Amino acid sequence: MNPKRCAACKYLRRRCPKDCVFSPYFPPDDPQKFACVHRIYGAGNVSKMLQQLPDQTRAEAVESLCFEAKCRVDDPVYGCVGIIHLLKTQIQKTQNELAKTQAEIAVSQTKLSQTQNSDFM
Amino acid sequence: MNPKRCAACKYLRRRCPKDCVFSPYFPPDDPQKFACVHRIYGAGNVSKMLQQLPDQTRAEAVESLCFEAKCRVDDPVYGCVGIIHLLKTQIQKTQNELAKTQAEIAVSQTKLSQTQNSDFM
Repeated sequence: MNPKRCAACKYLRRRCPKDCVFSPYFPPDDPQKFACVHRIYGAGNVSKMLQQLPDQTRAEAVESLCFEAKCRVDDPVYGCVGIIHLLKTQIQKTQNELAKTQAEIAVSQTKLSQTQNSDFM
Repeated sequence: MNPKRCAACKYLRRRCPKDCVFSPYFPPDDPQKFACVHRIYGAGNVSKMLQQLPDQTRAEAVESLCFEAKCRVDDPVYGCVGIIHLLKTQIQKTQNELAKTQAEIAVSQTKLSQTQNSDFM
């Protein structure tokens, strides 16, 4: 066995070809990275998705696939949609706080202008 | 062919068994829903993921898988991780706006208290 096989070929117990589609993105020292995408998408689907992309976008695609796969392993019901819900809740809370603060500023400004007007009376 | 086959069995050109794992979540009138998850995860992986979940969580799991699959079809590089980045940017913007507004309110309140103090001089 070639000790320089990428993590994907090691996992799939196969020879790592020179033009291996996985090898640039799955170094042998991080076996968990491939195990995770393999468990969720399957090696064939990951390979197909990467082959349909231009080379310069593949690294980013692998990172996002690995992120989504890890989310799905951690939360098999909601995956990273759970994170999207959390973030939307956080936006709603921050927007509410902003609206409240903007209302407070309006009240303060009204009071200020009333006080200033009363100075001229 | 049984016209009541679920969308998944129709897509896979197979008989729809009574205990079909897909049938409660992939009605025959929405073929696109299954086509999308099949394209990204493969039928076998979806079936495996559903079978590992208790019945009462499967509908939610199917919805989140379909959402993620649709995101990946629409954006093959970033999938729904692209949405997470957008939401994080939106949170940052709202938090900045909130901090700015809170600073403005502090200025208004200082001005107000200065004006009120000068009234008593």
